[in-house]
Amino acid sequence: MNKYLKVDEWKLIEEGFNPENHKGSESLFSLGNGRIGQRANFEEKYSGSSLQGNYVAGVYYPDKTRVGWWKNGYPEYFAKVLNAPNWIGIDVFIDDEELDFAKAKVDKFMRVLNMHDGVLERKAEVTLESGKKIRLVSKRFLSMHNQDIAAIKYSITPINFSGKITFIPYIDADIKNEDSNYDEKFWNIVEKQVDKSEAFITAETKKTEFQVCSGMVYNITKNHVTTEFEPELIQHDRYVANKISIDANKNDELVLYKYAAVLSSRNVEKSTLLEQTIKTAKQAAKTGFEILLNDHIATWEAKWHESDIVIEGDVEAQQGIRFNIFQLNQTYTGDDPTLNIGPKGFTGEKYGGSTYWDTEAYCLAFYLSTADSHVARNLLKYRYNQLDRAIENAEKLGFKNGAALYPMVTMNGEECHNEWEITFEEIHRNGAIAYAIYNYVNYTGDKEYLVEYGLEVLIAISRFWSQRVNYSEDKKKYVMLGVTGPNEYENNVNNNWYTNKIAAWTLKYTQETIAFVKKTHPARFSEITEKTKLQEFEEPARWENIVNKMYYPYDEKRKVLLQQDGFLDKEIKNIEFIPVAERPINQNWSWDRILRSCYIKQADVLQGIYFFENEFDKDAIRRNFDFYEPITVHESSLSPCIYSVMASKIGNNKKAYDLYLRTARLDLDDYNDEVYQGCHITSMAGTWLSIVEGFAGKRIIDDRLHFSPSIPRKWLSYSFVLRFRGSLVSIKITRKEMLISNLNGIDVSVAINDKKYEIASKQSISVEIKSI
Amino acid sequence: MNKYLKVDEWKLIEEGFNPENHKGSESLFSLGNGRIGQRANFEEKYSGSSLQGNYVAGVYYPDKTRVGWWKNGYPEYFAKVLNAPNWIGIDVFIDDEELDFAKAKVDKFMRVLNMHDGVLERKAEVTLESGKKIRLVSKRFLSMHNQDIAAIKYSITPINFSGKITFIPYIDADIKNEDSNYDEKFWNIVEKQVDKSEAFITAETKKTEFQVCSGMVYNITKNHVTTEFEPELIQHDRYVANKISIDANKNDELVLYKYAAVLSSRNVEKSTLLEQTIKTAKQAAKTGFEILLNDHIATWEAKWHESDIVIEGDVEAQQGIRFNIFQLNQTYTGDDPTLNIGPKGFTGEKYGGSTYWDTEAYCLAFYLSTADSHVARNLLKYRYNQLDRAIENAEKLGFKNGAALYPMVTMNGEECHNEWEITFEEIHRNGAIAYAIYNYVNYTGDKEYLVEYGLEVLIAISRFWSQRVNYSEDKKKYVMLGVTGPNEYENNVNNNWYTNKIAAWTLKYTQETIAFVKKTHPARFSEITEKTKLQEFEEPARWENIVNKMYYPYDEKRKVLLQQDGFLDKEIKNIEFIPVAERPINQNWSWDRILRSCYIKQADVLQGIYFFENEFDKDAIRRNFDFYEPITVHESSLSPCIYSVMASKIGNNKKAYDLYLRTARLDLDDYNDEVYQGCHITSMAGTWLSIVEGFAGKRIIDDRLHFSPSIPRKWLSYSFVLRFRGSLVSIKITRKEMLISNLNGIDVSVAINDKKYEIASKQSISVEIKSI
Repeated sequence: MNKYLKVDEWKLIEEGFNPENHKGSESLFSLGNGRIGQRANFEEKYSGSSLQGNYVAGVYYPDKTRVGWWKNGYPEYFAKVLNAPNWIGIDVFIDDEELDFAKAKVDKFMRVLNMHDGVLERKAEVTLESGKKIRLVSKRFLSMHNQDIAAIKYSITPINFSGKITFIPYIDADIKNEDSNYDEKFWNIVEKQVDKSEAFITAETKKTEFQVCSGMVYNITKNHVTTEFEPELIQHDRYVANKISIDANKNDELVLYKYAAVLSSRNVEKSTLLEQTIKTAKQAAKTGFEILLNDHIATWEAKWHESDIVIEGDVEAQQGIRFNIFQLNQTYTGDDPTLNIGPKGFTGEKYGGSTYWDTEAYCLAFYLSTADSHVARNLLKYRYNQLDRAIENAEKLGFKNGAALYPMVTMNGEECHNEWEITFEEIHRNGAIAYAIYNYVNYTGDKEYLVEYGLEVLIAISRFWSQRVNYSEDKKKYVMLGVTGPNEYENNVNNNWYTNKIAAWTLKYTQETIAFVKKTHPARFSEITEKTKLQEFEEPARWENIVNKMYYPYDEKRKVLLQQDGFLDKEIKNIEFIPVAERPINQNWSWDRILRSCYIKQADVLQGIYFFENEFDKDAIRRNFDFYEPITVHESSLSPCIYSVMASKIGNNKKAYDLYLRTARLDLDDYNDEVYQGCHITSMAGTWLSIVEGFAGKRIIDDRLHFSPSIPRKWLSYSFVLRFRGSLVSIKITRKEMLISNLNGIDVSVAINDKKYEIASKQSISVEIKSI
Repeated sequence: MNKYLKVDEWKLIEEGFNPENHKGSESLFSLGNGRIGQRANFEEKYSGSSLQGNYVAGVYYPDKTRVGWWKNGYPEYFAKVLNAPNWIGIDVFIDDEELDFAKAKVDKFMRVLNMHDGVLERKAEVTLESGKKIRLVSKRFLSMHNQDIAAIKYSITPINFSGKITFIPYIDADIKNEDSNYDEKFWNIVEKQVDKSEAFITAETKKTEFQVCSGMVYNITKNHVTTEFEPELIQHDRYVANKISIDANKNDELVLYKYAAVLSSRNVEKSTLLEQTIKTAKQAAKTGFEILLNDHIATWEAKWHESDIVIEGDVEAQQGIRFNIFQLNQTYTGDDPTLNIGPKGFTGEKYGGSTYWDTEAYCLAFYLSTADSHVARNLLKYRYNQLDRAIENAEKLGFKNGAALYPMVTMNGEECHNEWEITFEEIHRNGAIAYAIYNYVNYTGDKEYLVEYGLEVLIAISRFWSQRVNYSEDKKKYVMLGVTGPNEYENNVNNNWYTNKIAAWTLKYTQETIAFVKKTHPARFSEITEKTKLQEFEEPARWENIVNKMYYPYDEKRKVLLQQDGFLDKEIKNIEFIPVAERPINQNWSWDRILRSCYIKQADVLQGIYFFENEFDKDAIRRNFDFYEPITVHESSLSPCIYSVMASKIGNNKKAYDLYLRTARLDLDDYNDEVYQGCHITSMAGTWLSIVEGFAGKRIIDDRLHFSPSIPRKWLSYSFVLRFRGSLVSIKITRKEMLISNLNGIDVSVAINDKKYEIASKQSISVEIKSI
């Protein structure tokens, strides 16, 4: 836990420079635009502790992995998000003294991330060892309007001296990953070009052969007037730069405008990559900083319009939710179906691979409600496009006949994680991918998706479940042995309730979908049966049999679902019994001790109740919540949000709010002392869920928006906008009423606390609510 | 499976050169003398597939280990058995053509390991590319008489030409391990010396800083007459050599006698290491090949006298058991309590670390019966000496108050294996270490061992068990969650019967030992209670409570012990259902599939029945055997021997013999296609068990040797010698009788099929037996 940022509705503000917070701030103040991302590293040299990070979406390296003893079926590599060539760099010398915040005395310092505008700004005054004082102001953004470009306005003013200021703006491909094995470098240089006011490097990743061209065009003003200069051109092996020295009198402001373009072979032909990058950077410079910035802000404005949540009366909560929404929008924009949402987004290199089940289980709901439906559809198609590889993956593990196991972690559809208890056993991910199809169709009503793509995926996943269970002669039931549930503090357990449940649900949903597609699109259905070699009657019959005879562990005494077989053999003790010094247990306890303990990393049974809520009455939910919540340590960022939604559901508003704050400010307050590694991007969608599905109680039932609103004690009101099947609905919940406005042209039907209301176009309704 | 060796009672014979078998032969024909070991690599260059291996007992390197996700409590390193500087090397040129069996045509080839003498011989005739033919005869041994030296007699004879023969005898420290990460080298050079007829290198391991000095002194004869020569002295960075060219006429025999000395800082001060090595090598050369060889053979002769098993009527079985006994004697001689028995001995580098529970569970019994009792005592003291580190190891995992968890794999007492399911969970090893104390005391009657060393170890292990179990409110019993039993094809299971059993047994045995020591050695007992801070009454009381309330999974229907909770949820299908192409399953199935299956890698429940046989009647043993044996794949070399002993116990002689053959010839016939990695040394003790405890039914009950003899159908007789409490007893079992001779001065009391016999000194008895 580390609270050093100022609380503000729209901004992250760090005042005063504390090197110990710098690495964390580099994560928190990160910028991204869906295609490129950049940690808040300083432009000029910084010799203190820092994690240099600049990432290009979808560009990765298949790193070697080593484990103690190789297991048959392990993947060949671990995909690594790559630190890409540095385009922000501007080294600065004052006379012959290099500017370095680690060596100078930082007299004044302020770092501000304006989330509304998507702009990072730093203002500082520093005294160099020589006693010379300068003022530094830097401002940068990664354009949301044109995702290939970024711009930096970098200003230096001598305060107490006149002298020579030297700028070295550069592009540096001599970079590595902090976590690379044996300091390996992952980039080869393809070509370089350096000229007056510009420099470009094309680098290619080893093995994966992605090319990225990073370049800059810059100009300099002195006291707001463009200044002429004759730079020294610098070129090393993996580095290109200009060096410009300019005489400045006291109080002269020198500003370097650096326009960067970063293009990759994912979007541009390799043969024209350099040319296109040059063109893009030059065009950006021609357009100029202010116009680029205005376009960028306008794009953000539109995004905020649809995705913002406004909270009155609780600035901490407001800042928290905005930070989460900001990061989600920075990370994924939804226009490229080959991209997905990495757990750290563009804020760090940990968790290497890009796609986890987080996308389907947590993120999808956010994009469904806050963006055009093609965005969520692209997230689903990402998996559809990788179905063949999921089938190959299952084959490697001995499954047959078109069964698919989607990877735990992937970049291109291949598994790239290798711990057996995760890779081979955390198979509930397959269920979340099926559930996401349901969730999407249920939300959008887009049943065509099932016809076009969904059914093929469902059949393949159902085949997997059907082969993964076995019939227990002892129990006279189907059982699923050797799995790891969402709670990764249990490995290789038998009959994880959540996994059994989502497997059976998938089998059932697939049968329904088969019936639907067969009836409504018989030709397409024939195509699918042919392509998948579906045994139209035998396979669903077996699935039905499994559904009917699936085993679910249950405690008759407490009337709670059991997380897995044997759970009650554990010593069940609330988390208060864990000494504070031993929390988080994953940093203090050995793995066997964690496994033996009753402590739960993240929602597991509760995750299933969250997904299949309609199958449980409130008492049952409460019993399960009351049994599991006190033994849940929430050491996954994905945990508190689900518990928060469920706490709202059972009317435990205090708990719901506490858990909300924890999820919303997880990174801002650095709960787990690890934000320096990057932010928890995927769990940020969970924060949004805590409000919209938790406090506001949003559900989609029978094609209708439902709400069961509540409001945290501290809040005066909260409001947000939802997209739902072509309509745009604005919701405001105050302490007394719920106000719903239908913002556009289609009538909309909603239910509040199960009472139905029709709202005509451009109309509003207000419903009184009981606030607690 | 690969049967290419000739069957012979005393020898391993390979006729004809097949490069595909070479790496396997390098393992099988390995030599060792307890202190140094050498794979059967060729002396001259061999550019074909080969695993160069030369090992110095106890010299290891703490290699980096990498796993996907680091777990708290993992050790810092993986100890690696190191390939040490090459001292066998003699490169040969015929005129200017290098001798290399991978390039020449090998016309005749015979490789013979004479196990009786401990001598490796190779005779070959080869035609070089030039058409020149030579005869090569090489003979070498690693002296059992003086463990610091080895000698090679290396002879070349031109068959169809006269020309210049060049020898380059060398010492090469430019070596690496085949399994080193990123081709790292582990040795630094300390000093070198090369002179006429001699060369030495002292190398030091990185990090662990062991020094090994390897040197040679050599001379050359031509047609049996010592020849003079003026060698070229060669010295590179990590290499020293002499180069000698000698003119030879057709049929002239040139013989190079290479005397090697290999000394290490484990036995000699670093400051005098080079000096001592030089002295040792020179002394060896002075003594001469034949005398050294005779001393060596005499030492082996004495070893065979006490440890041989003679089988009449079954040469395959005879060769098998002798090979096993030979390797065990080569690997461990028992005079250094800091050494132990690595799973591959000196025959390969796999399994890096030296000591596994194999030592206590399998090897101890062999050394108890075939060597002076100080040898077995040294094996126990090895663990006693490492008790402090076992306590530290347990502390790292969160155990307290002097609880000890011995490492799964170790070189110096520190854990050096890092897979959580093994390192943290395969804790039954602790039980085997306690059981070995009982086994030793039961066999030798040396109760003083308990007083001096044993009790401290027992208390520490009991403390571990007492903290590792927990009370299940659900079962109203003590349970042990999250363990891996001997059957490593199950991980993280609850209530592995074997582990629960051996834990409870330890707790009971410790209580008895406390009572014994307290009564017989009250002063020493006070010392121990003080040292261990034993709560004399409270701790044993808790232990007793656990013993009384320990939970044991059991199937009431089948009346069999259950390997673990939930075992009956599996699909139980005999191994015949596994397609042959999918065997061994550990090379063909993914790990989750193996875990989910019912298939058992090695004796687990049966291992417990083996240890605690007296608690079961024959019917119970048979029921368990009949349930588990058909689902056991024996993919650990440690498996068939235990099943064989148990098969003998229940009178299933055919099964006992089949399993015996499999264990005895596991490496000779390369059952698992992996002998090229090295031989399975520790399981070789199991082969011995199959005969002595299996067929002969040897047990120690109430301080008396018991037998319940049987004889495999094919055998005419088998005989062996046992040491037992100062007496030496020779046993011969024919198809009709069992003959026991008391070879030395103490009367001995035995029981045959539970009938007691007293045998006076130098007397024999004969008892009729029913052969089947």
